[in-house]
Amino acid sequence: MALKSFVEVKLDSHFSIHNLPFGVFKHGGDDAAPRPGVAIGDYVLDLSAIHSAGLFDGPFLCNSDCFHQSNLNKFLELGRPAWKEARSTLQKLLSCAIYDEPALQNNASLKQKALLPMGEVEMVLPIAIGDYTDFFSSKHHAKNCGLIFRGPENPVNPNWFHLPIAYHGRASSIVISGTDIIRPRGQGHPSGNSPPYFGPSRKLDFELEMAAVVGPGNELGKPIDVNNAADHIFGVVLMNDWSARDIQAWEYVPLGPFLGKSFGTTISPWIVTLDALQPFACDAPNQTPPPLPYLAENISKNYDISLEVRIKPSGEENSFTVTNSNFNNLYWTLTQQLAHHTINGCNLRPGDLLGTGTISGPEPESYGCLLELTWNGTKELSVGKSTRRFLEDGDEVIISGICKGNGYNVGFGTCSGKILPCLP
Amino acid sequence: MALKSFVEVKLDSHFSIHNLPFGVFKHGGDDAAPRPGVAIGDYVLDLSAIHSAGLFDGPFLCNSDCFHQSNLNKFLELGRPAWKEARSTLQKLLSCAIYDEPALQNNASLKQKALLPMGEVEMVLPIAIGDYTDFFSSKHHAKNCGLIFRGPENPVNPNWFHLPIAYHGRASSIVISGTDIIRPRGQGHPSGNSPPYFGPSRKLDFELEMAAVVGPGNELGKPIDVNNAADHIFGVVLMNDWSARDIQAWEYVPLGPFLGKSFGTTISPWIVTLDALQPFACDAPNQTPPPLPYLAENISKNYDISLEVRIKPSGEENSFTVTNSNFNNLYWTLTQQLAHHTINGCNLRPGDLLGTGTISGPEPESYGCLLELTWNGTKELSVGKSTRRFLEDGDEVIISGICKGNGYNVGFGTCSGKILPCLP
Repeated sequence: MALKSFVEVKLDSHFSIHNLPFGVFKHGGDDAAPRPGVAIGDYVLDLSAIHSAGLFDGPFLCNSDCFHQSNLNKFLELGRPAWKEARSTLQKLLSCAIYDEPALQNNASLKQKALLPMGEVEMVLPIAIGDYTDFFSSKHHAKNCGLIFRGPENPVNPNWFHLPIAYHGRASSIVISGTDIIRPRGQGHPSGNSPPYFGPSRKLDFELEMAAVVGPGNELGKPIDVNNAADHIFGVVLMNDWSARDIQAWEYVPLGPFLGKSFGTTISPWIVTLDALQPFACDAPNQTPPPLPYLAENISKNYDISLEVRIKPSGEENSFTVTNSNFNNLYWTLTQQLAHHTINGCNLRPGDLLGTGTISGPEPESYGCLLELTWNGTKELSVGKSTRRFLEDGDEVIISGICKGNGYNVGFGTCSGKILPCLP
Repeated sequence: MALKSFVEVKLDSHFSIHNLPFGVFKHGGDDAAPRPGVAIGDYVLDLSAIHSAGLFDGPFLCNSDCFHQSNLNKFLELGRPAWKEARSTLQKLLSCAIYDEPALQNNASLKQKALLPMGEVEMVLPIAIGDYTDFFSSKHHAKNCGLIFRGPENPVNPNWFHLPIAYHGRASSIVISGTDIIRPRGQGHPSGNSPPYFGPSRKLDFELEMAAVVGPGNELGKPIDVNNAADHIFGVVLMNDWSARDIQAWEYVPLGPFLGKSFGTTISPWIVTLDALQPFACDAPNQTPPPLPYLAENISKNYDISLEVRIKPSGEENSFTVTNSNFNNLYWTLTQQLAHHTINGCNLRPGDLLGTGTISGPEPESYGCLLELTWNGTKELSVGKSTRRFLEDGDEVIISGICKGNGYNVGFGTCSGKILPCLP
């Protein structure tokens, strides 16, 4: 592709000019006001500075204060026309001036002010999340969980093939990549007739997920058509939906996961837009039985996003790959998830987060959590020189995701978190 | 009690000077700014006007702008000392001047401005709800659900007696009393091997609940001690957590209720404070097995709150009582629910809502939902001249709750909603 930025973008950078993911950062200490930015190479472009300089001159953004907010919700609410205007404006401004627009490249003082080295900023949660929903959309994950907990007869429940199963998650405990996670305490599943044990979770796990960020919402009582659902999705982040398997196993019948999940969920700071992912769209899997009409899409899309999870044990200098998966392992698409979510009239709001559920592939090397990788702790997994059944204190879990284009990447950066011991 | 207001409070009024529940109202049309108020007799006292007049002169409230907000969250965050200061200030101002404080009673222009007839105001959601959690704390309800869905062998799951079972609910679809509820569509549980049906819910139900409103929250990773939990609860509202039983029955294995619940949850406008409920505190039931230490309270309290549900069919002038229950039918206390919620480190925030779950009593006349009252539609329930198995379009469901004191009431008013047909 000919599009090239005047900002240096290394060949292995996740943040080419084809990407331009949106986030929110602080610059200049803890008291600095958070503001929106996009990533380009090793820099963050401050969108409030670009707006103040009058360079967002399109009809949707020129008079909007959406880039002078402490989160992206106001921008999300504007919808795809505004998102496309932002993207094309920024691609023009950031491209080499010999091809295009010199307003930024040739303005030294604006560049100084607006282009900030990534190492100097602190990324914060990019959105105010009203509601967080977690789906269960990988068939391999659903099947493995069924095999582990219910055995080989019908490991996947019959409802799973008819609808994208999901549950409401906890919004308050969603944190930005880099935030430490304190090992939760709780009641663990008793064996036999003994009472439940109580204490720090003995089966702490990561879950390799991605999550869609909702743009414009819908009114209560008015479902969103599956063929319009993409207009309600701004973009996608990496997500680690940490799980305490022993707590969850004891509490989840009949109302589903609760404290086994609500102690923390980590998301990556950069929201990669659906527009940037478009070149990496691929066919979604065939669905049998065919979905009911409200879930039947004219075009059913997945995305080819390579996903990796590494673990860095305490005291180790290196991290070690424990799984490789791909977003295209999902059976239910993002748009089906969103349409299903609203078919009963439930209202979505800008900034809502829809997790995919654990993204496991078909091969054991592509399973998306330790529960599957160690088969509920019955086998050991090599992590460098040591082994794991579940996470230990001091373990850092690092998820990354990337789409490889022809000479450029559209990447998600990383989503990481370290386990701290339980408070005394 | 000698305490008496200069505002007329009829004998059957829910809103005596002993109550003073907090809400948020609009006065003067849709565009008016919402502001906090308390109910007294047939009036709403505008707290922003009282604050502007300098009558909140205690140390916590005199310089706070918490009564100039469009919701109560900022007031909730201040905690019990500020709540007690507000209550004692308001009891003084509203009591007869011969006993106490003439600043309001003898100020005609302030009374005119601040005391608004209830019929002239529109109540709105009093809180911005970050997260909504629904518990399952009535043993009678848990047992009946078990009998209906799983049969007579161990109708209550073993975990139920060890922890207050709960799930994350949907915050976006919580609406204020008086809001119509559109019948949800969705996939219903298939019979035998047939595929699921799709369409308007055939088993639409109410759920008689109450919900605690969280005051000061906790930091992620730092649980709240059960013996301090009451300091994190501002007060209680009535709640109808509408349920589509056919949708829920099909979707809820293994991750719990989702679209069967997220189409709407109605709460009453007035938050009755724990301080106002204090005279109606009663012993919580004995718990066997004894709860684990983190759930063991020094003093374990319920409240004697009479609850009633009436249904007003479309076209009928009258409503008909379908059940009478009491808050004291709960097995797990509000404070146990809150402490359990945070034991894994989950952070609560001011304005979070903790539903009790359906409050059923032991007798068939005290069951808290149609699922139990009609035993999943196998029997008919009389509603005036007609009968019901589940709710029909046009049905209005009206929940009320009241504590009867000696010559005064501490009541919750009503929590109502009418079922509208599905959109075409």
